[in-house]
Amino acid sequence: MKRRYLMTPGPSPVPSFIREAMSREIMHHRTDEFIEILKETNAGLKVVFCTKNPVITLASSGTGAMEASVCNLFSSGDKVISIVAGKFGERWTEIAKSFGLNVIVMNVAAGSAPSPDELKKLLDANKDTKGVFSTLCETSTATVCDIQGFAALTKERNVLLVTDAISGLGQDVLRTDEWGVDVVVSGSQKGFMLPPGLAFISLSERAQAALKTSNLPKYYFDLKKALKSYEKNDTPYTPAVSLIVGLKDALVAINNDGIENMWARYKKMSIATQEAAKALGLEVFSKRPSSSLTAICAPAGLNAKELVKKMRKEYGISIAAGQGELEEKIFRIAHMGWINEQDLLMCFSVLEKMLKDMGVKIKLGSSVARLQEVIYG
Amino acid sequence: MKRRYLMTPGPSPVPSFIREAMSREIMHHRTDEFIEILKETNAGLKVVFCTKNPVITLASSGTGAMEASVCNLFSSGDKVISIVAGKFGERWTEIAKSFGLNVIVMNVAAGSAPSPDELKKLLDANKDTKGVFSTLCETSTATVCDIQGFAALTKERNVLLVTDAISGLGQDVLRTDEWGVDVVVSGSQKGFMLPPGLAFISLSERAQAALKTSNLPKYYFDLKKALKSYEKNDTPYTPAVSLIVGLKDALVAINNDGIENMWARYKKMSIATQEAAKALGLEVFSKRPSSSLTAICAPAGLNAKELVKKMRKEYGISIAAGQGELEEKIFRIAHMGWINEQDLLMCFSVLEKMLKDMGVKIKLGSSVARLQEVIYG
Repeated sequence: MKRRYLMTPGPSPVPSFIREAMSREIMHHRTDEFIEILKETNAGLKVVFCTKNPVITLASSGTGAMEASVCNLFSSGDKVISIVAGKFGERWTEIAKSFGLNVIVMNVAAGSAPSPDELKKLLDANKDTKGVFSTLCETSTATVCDIQGFAALTKERNVLLVTDAISGLGQDVLRTDEWGVDVVVSGSQKGFMLPPGLAFISLSERAQAALKTSNLPKYYFDLKKALKSYEKNDTPYTPAVSLIVGLKDALVAINNDGIENMWARYKKMSIATQEAAKALGLEVFSKRPSSSLTAICAPAGLNAKELVKKMRKEYGISIAAGQGELEEKIFRIAHMGWINEQDLLMCFSVLEKMLKDMGVKIKLGSSVARLQEVIYG
Repeated sequence: MKRRYLMTPGPSPVPSFIREAMSREIMHHRTDEFIEILKETNAGLKVVFCTKNPVITLASSGTGAMEASVCNLFSSGDKVISIVAGKFGERWTEIAKSFGLNVIVMNVAAGSAPSPDELKKLLDANKDTKGVFSTLCETSTATVCDIQGFAALTKERNVLLVTDAISGLGQDVLRTDEWGVDVVVSGSQKGFMLPPGLAFISLSERAQAALKTSNLPKYYFDLKKALKSYEKNDTPYTPAVSLIVGLKDALVAINNDGIENMWARYKKMSIATQEAAKALGLEVFSKRPSSSLTAICAPAGLNAKELVKKMRKEYGISIAAGQGELEEKIFRIAHMGWINEQDLLMCFSVLEKMLKDMGVKIKLGSSVARLQEVIYG
């Protein structure tokens, strides 16, 4: 009889109306009916991505779309800058190196946001830079990066800006065309409220031009081929039909709420979560907190990993510990996709009780009261 | 109120017990519960693949696993033989060329099965061949290839045999270890009775050794990394959770029936379909018909594409026309996965009525009678 609550940064909960859509009888993908669905999802994705350019859907996890943007836009030996503020920034570096790019790594301390000024220095010192890899929400530290600041630098240079928005899209503000972000990569299992298995990639006109000159090997992730199929609302290889059927309904729900309203709502949830943590005397880990999730430092003497394990075991609530060196130091509560304000109220109610049981001096109700004030006030 | 019947060679129908399993609340993939599921699917896949070696599950369509076997087992400039008996054989050639391999193409006329003797000649003339790419069931012509014959040649040479069993696995006999097939690739949407979105790849000991020396670029499809995660019943990147939950139940069903029994059952369905076609005076296209689907030549003066379209529109039954040059010449009826004997009886009943309406001289009931004899006799 134990109920489960998923408040991890992906997979995030899949609402029943989407699970129901995906459980219908399978349809063949080379039919007018499925082409119509792809037409709708292609249009809906543009709205969420804030772009008039194509957004291609791939059957893979988000990492597949990251690889696609490396092997389709660049050629062997190309100089690129990888902005690394945590685990997911490191992935850019790994992929780019796997494909033989010349990678300059811009390292940032965990919890800090990379500064456009520093990127400017690197770009000025490396005039032959072809691309910059960045992360909208660095999930490992719950930090949102200044993509607008990066784009202001890259768009006036001959440099492609590629942004991993796998966990940030839908919650953290990202004005792709307005800011001038060339490539935005995302995945299905976070803001899109779907199971994992789909990846998305938007391509600016500059990015589409770059496809033509890249000399790196590719086949499954060949975006030139994908783009040709996309124009006919088709896919080069068998698409993940059931997930795309779910995507259609997810996009209707998201675009009914409106992306600007969603940004405002998750921002409020993020501030409420930060304030609730402070009300318990806890420190927010990130210096530039994301709207998608909040990382909170464990109180002195308390192991974050143990807290997370205990919460899952005793209360059925899944939140996330830190990753790598941060594993025992921080815990992360997601507020993305289908996770809502009531989930936060429930989660902090339990957190208070647990901290008290574990000997931390807190006043029951204090964080919940602060959440109520920020959310409903 | 129109009911739909899917008798195409992928996606093939997904039974309701699997759709129900996939529609449950999503779970996090880094949990004991999900590790337990992966442990079960990893074990169940070995039984279906007839191997004691690892079978890795990827989040992609089958083509992703084809690419994985090219870019993980070989190095640039390696000489390989691609056996091409139709559209899916051509895909091997395309992928291998994309990654800079030196590809010798062994072309076979559409509908014919490639001969081991011819492969032997090629191997003898090219002693430096590193690999052979083959197809168990060439779906475009409904032809099953002599994989056992190829394996007898490759296993005694230092040559890796890679087999695309995307549409054949589960229906066409494939004794991976007994025959000595190094790599078998498959996908979720055919014999496995799942939606598309998962790919599988088995690796013999020789293939595992080859991973260590390959110099081709890869990241998402890096099998060395995947193998390391596999050993802990984990995945390097976010797995397609809902599809894997469905896979667990699909494998239980398949292994309850038993792979040997399934081979016999689909073989009988295949023979019944061939006989039914002949009873209508129609010709079976393939000279070595697969147990997964049957390709039937359209009667003189009748366009196969029109027949297929009419059957879908008027009776809700989806079968497949030919591909490429065969588009108007053949139609293909699948008997794979969840498609059963009763579906064939229903399909031929309708086919008889349609052919009669279209002016073809046939006797109503004649093909159905032949089906009944072969299936129940």
